[in-house]
Amino acid sequence: MAEELKLFRTWSSLFALRIVWALKIKGVEYETIFEDLSNKSPSLLQYNPVHKKVPVLVHNGKPIAESFVILEYIDETWKETPLLPEDPYERAMARFWAKFGDDKVLTSIVWGVFLKEGKEQEEAMVEAMEHLQFLEDELKGKRFFGGERIGIFEEVAGLKMVDEDKFPLLVAWMQEFADSPIIKDNWPPRDKMIAKFQALRDAKLAAAAAASK
Amino acid sequence: MAEELKLFRTWSSLFALRIVWALKIKGVEYETIFEDLSNKSPSLLQYNPVHKKVPVLVHNGKPIAESFVILEYIDETWKETPLLPEDPYERAMARFWAKFGDDKVLTSIVWGVFLKEGKEQEEAMVEAMEHLQFLEDELKGKRFFGGERIGIFEEVAGLKMVDEDKFPLLVAWMQEFADSPIIKDNWPPRDKMIAKFQALRDAKLAAAAAASK
Repeated sequence: MAEELKLFRTWSSLFALRIVWALKIKGVEYETIFEDLSNKSPSLLQYNPVHKKVPVLVHNGKPIAESFVILEYIDETWKETPLLPEDPYERAMARFWAKFGDDKVLTSIVWGVFLKEGKEQEEAMVEAMEHLQFLEDELKGKRFFGGERIGIFEEVAGLKMVDEDKFPLLVAWMQEFADSPIIKDNWPPRDKMIAKFQALRDAKLAAAAAASK
Repeated sequence: MAEELKLFRTWSSLFALRIVWALKIKGVEYETIFEDLSNKSPSLLQYNPVHKKVPVLVHNGKPIAESFVILEYIDETWKETPLLPEDPYERAMARFWAKFGDDKVLTSIVWGVFLKEGKEQEEAMVEAMEHLQFLEDELKGKRFFGGERIGIFEEVAGLKMVDEDKFPLLVAWMQEFADSPIIKDNWPPRDKMIAKFQALRDAKLAAAAAASK
């Protein structure tokens, strides 16, 4: 049977972009289905009835959801150019920090700093800085998987979080990550991303202001 | 070098109990350190500076936190009696449902149904039932890892969620899980668990009532 591999994504989802990068790193051919989340396709709902979200990878008819679960599946199915380290302890550390990034860093930055303002934003900022400090402390020549371009959030929210003086290793790692060819070639246009996230932030703040009246 | 394996836990943490069960299934010897979370040991803070929580497993001096990360480490280090299935797709499904259990089922049941009352509890109940239905639909002769004794929450909150008529497969699976010798021999006493969670619920509801005055 010929391999059939389909990726359901949106053009801007960072979780879906991770899967694009992983498949490119592995050199695996796949078909892309772009979803409109305001009008989800019957296929997406069928393949991911639990979360109804992208990314979903469908391999020979069998669907997998949740971006880190998909990454591990890709790593175990196409073994060349491993994404996770070989050693069990190093693998555990990679999984720990990936989970920390998804559960804590992204949450405090996106939901706290990026989508709030005023006092709430300041409080979220303290938390976000603490999370970034943990990453900085851990980054000693290690390669993380799943970095996200925090710079876009910074630009839209009009503030600076990842300062080179404060987090030199993190800044260097983000730069190296952004400069690697596979990541560079598979990023949506920066101005399109900025416009999208600006609209998201404006809508969220307007909704919060309306709710507090 | 002789193997040194230490588990930091509390007597009641369900996430730590999963690790106890996993180590018993593997037949691995380990030392237990019981933590008092109101007075955490310097070792716990040193080994898990990010989350400052149990469980933490320390293998030959190297710490691992986050219960599912620990489970995978155990599975990859002591390979006999595998916890996760061999096949990559089946492994992905096990990881997906474990994540669903931790992120969605436990959250809606513990934070929603168990620690709320009145209208908020009713709304959480709708969500919890939807989550349980997904598990029921998936449970077709499969073995899940990480089941928690929902019965204790039900008894304390004074309501019935996992009804045999509604969720026959889930009830059967929970019973089979609870009856297996390793689980049975490694559960804290039921009356002690009930007392602990009753106190937790009472304190939470009193705090919520005070905050809304």
